[in-house]
Amino acid sequence: MSSASTWLDLPDDHPFGLANLPYGVFSTNGTAPRVGVRIGDWVLDAGAVAQIGKDAVGVGDGPDLAVAWANPSLNPFLELGHQAWTIARDWLTEVFSEAVHEEAVRPHLIPLGEVTMHLPIAVADYVDFYASEHHATNVGKIFRPNSEPLTPNWKHLPIGYHGRSGTVVVSGTDVVRPSGQRKAPADPAPTFGPSRKLDIEAELGFVVGGSTTLGASVDVSLAAEQHLFGVVLLNDWSARDIQAWEYVPLGPFLGKSFGTSISAWVTPMAALEAARSALPTQDPLPLPYLRGAADAVFGLDIHVEVEWNGTVVSRPEYRDMYWAPAQMLAHLTVNGASIRSGDLFGSGTISGAARDSRGSFLELSWNGTEPVTMTDGSERSFLEDGDTVVLRAWAPGPAGSRIGLGEVGGRILPAR
Amino acid sequence: MSSASTWLDLPDDHPFGLANLPYGVFSTNGTAPRVGVRIGDWVLDAGAVAQIGKDAVGVGDGPDLAVAWANPSLNPFLELGHQAWTIARDWLTEVFSEAVHEEAVRPHLIPLGEVTMHLPIAVADYVDFYASEHHATNVGKIFRPNSEPLTPNWKHLPIGYHGRSGTVVVSGTDVVRPSGQRKAPADPAPTFGPSRKLDIEAELGFVVGGSTTLGASVDVSLAAEQHLFGVVLLNDWSARDIQAWEYVPLGPFLGKSFGTSISAWVTPMAALEAARSALPTQDPLPLPYLRGAADAVFGLDIHVEVEWNGTVVSRPEYRDMYWAPAQMLAHLTVNGASIRSGDLFGSGTISGAARDSRGSFLELSWNGTEPVTMTDGSERSFLEDGDTVVLRAWAPGPAGSRIGLGEVGGRILPAR
Repeated sequence: MSSASTWLDLPDDHPFGLANLPYGVFSTNGTAPRVGVRIGDWVLDAGAVAQIGKDAVGVGDGPDLAVAWANPSLNPFLELGHQAWTIARDWLTEVFSEAVHEEAVRPHLIPLGEVTMHLPIAVADYVDFYASEHHATNVGKIFRPNSEPLTPNWKHLPIGYHGRSGTVVVSGTDVVRPSGQRKAPADPAPTFGPSRKLDIEAELGFVVGGSTTLGASVDVSLAAEQHLFGVVLLNDWSARDIQAWEYVPLGPFLGKSFGTSISAWVTPMAALEAARSALPTQDPLPLPYLRGAADAVFGLDIHVEVEWNGTVVSRPEYRDMYWAPAQMLAHLTVNGASIRSGDLFGSGTISGAARDSRGSFLELSWNGTEPVTMTDGSERSFLEDGDTVVLRAWAPGPAGSRIGLGEVGGRILPAR
Repeated sequence: MSSASTWLDLPDDHPFGLANLPYGVFSTNGTAPRVGVRIGDWVLDAGAVAQIGKDAVGVGDGPDLAVAWANPSLNPFLELGHQAWTIARDWLTEVFSEAVHEEAVRPHLIPLGEVTMHLPIAVADYVDFYASEHHATNVGKIFRPNSEPLTPNWKHLPIGYHGRSGTVVVSGTDVVRPSGQRKAPADPAPTFGPSRKLDIEAELGFVVGGSTTLGASVDVSLAAEQHLFGVVLLNDWSARDIQAWEYVPLGPFLGKSFGTSISAWVTPMAALEAARSALPTQDPLPLPYLRGAADAVFGLDIHVEVEWNGTVVSRPEYRDMYWAPAQMLAHLTVNGASIRSGDLFGSGTISGAARDSRGSFLELSWNGTEPVTMTDGSERSFLEDGDTVVLRAWAPGPAGSRIGLGEVGGRILPAR
């Protein structure tokens, strides 16, 4: 990756500098949604610029990025595969760093304030993992106080389950408070109504590219290089009262399926090379299909911030996560399950050991028994109507720079 | 619905007669997959015939079936909505019953043996329910011998979970034996290898049409009429050893996600009007959002047959199911989750009280302790490499006729 500077007027410490270049899907007034690349506080109409090159010199043997980027989702670009992703990133870096391109490119840079951002991928299958030991332990203590908090399988495999891909929404989408059945242990029967324990889960989401065929598995040592395209910030909105009543024995369903928000920007894995971190010690040693070299099976040093109605209530650290993204993808496919471009998997809530690094309000307020104090002195345990939550994150980039992740925000509307 | 006869040479008792008319997606040598309608042992190239009418008289105010049926999945037709489904069915009935159409239609009837059938829908979200009281009780006794077999929530809500939509395959697709982690209670640690308890689940799958918006719910009294397009036979292949080790606390994942087979033919709900049946008594009375009139909240009198290597080992009856399809869809959306055309939900294993009406081998062999005797005298508990399973079903049609459902079959290939 080039560490060259750009002809754009951009401070060196801008979190969306030349070393970042996340992808999204945007539109401007009356135009069709298409792929954009963020640099600074502009969005590049990437397909339009690729078309200029194609008109001048043709596509040659390379991927046809102009065609791929003309689509209303990243999926066709994802399907081109990891070599095309590298070619595209190298090309974008050249376009932004060599002054000769400025005249052609500048007309296709649109100020962020003038675009509407859309869901960046057509979500194929959505899986949510449970990869934080601290989160799983906290939830176990709260939901199953009479059992060992970690289930016996937890350190042997990355536990996950399928979520609803049709209700994944882009940052900024309002979330209607869900209604459903809930039953406290002391209640004689369940009642129906709006959730009283509406919560968030601060997660990373991994965007998968490159399809496989049914019956094949993705090798843990190749998973990140070949199939992890990039990351989004993900808020797995959760109705804890609905979840607690429904989840035995087949897992979470309506407590989660009413909405999952992701950031509009997908940060390429290639922008996170400086953020790779060692995993916590895995003891017991995982089975061989989950083991791989450190350059293939790594964590990520990403710093997350949870803002609730303007107060930063938590700062989870992704490097605390027990299972690597590559291990999650290898596990997901070890039974022969195929993957598709546009698959999305969440890490599970990012929680650390300290209270102020917990990634859900269930944990922060210990199921409502230890309310969170906001900047204005008020207290809160779960989400109230009108509340807003914004997740932000950054990672170390090359040479001391910062790689900003796209934020993911949402506001709670009253139950209908 | 017309009870008229057809100009085709078709016995009155043919299970794919004029009162059936299921939809699928077919191709012939070198042609693009497109929507077909089965009658007798022919497939009608439905879009081609609709195009004849369009060329002659135009589309008018009605749905453009020629365009919808030119697609490689039923999804665009499903998205046209329930009024279009009725118009299409009335038109097909007229086409096959009035002799004046024979000359134009006959060239577009292709013998079944000359077509390749494809997955009929592009599966959006796939949910699997657990709606048989007998099945849930049996599984509870086997998997959780020290607890009440039915969990406390079971009679209050139709329990369900999301499955992997990308691994839903059409009847006839081979299934590779999955590998994964499994750990018997006495084992000190999990081991990795091919599943030793590979199983089936005989289910109905319900194909959903007509999208809704996030935050809205589908009323239980409107669910069947407006959003249930039709049914498929569904085999939810299950690796019981993998499932038993992984499923606490977030539910089944790799034990199911390696493949789910559905029949190539989707039987319209409109063909199953004579098969509507009363539900078993629901006690306790469900919460109001799950209650509705009998003409909206009904069971189905569908007779299923499980054939294992040529021996019919079970005959589950769908009318034994506790929860109605309309209740499942109302529950799935009561939290505001949206639906999309192409959504698919399974009923869960269809099991009755008698041993020979159990819809899984886990139950039939009581987890391997009571093997099943095949016609040739051999015994089997779970699937062996090379085994084939075919599910078949029929329902009562009008005037004593039978409505055949499309079969779903598959063969087990050795682990890779």
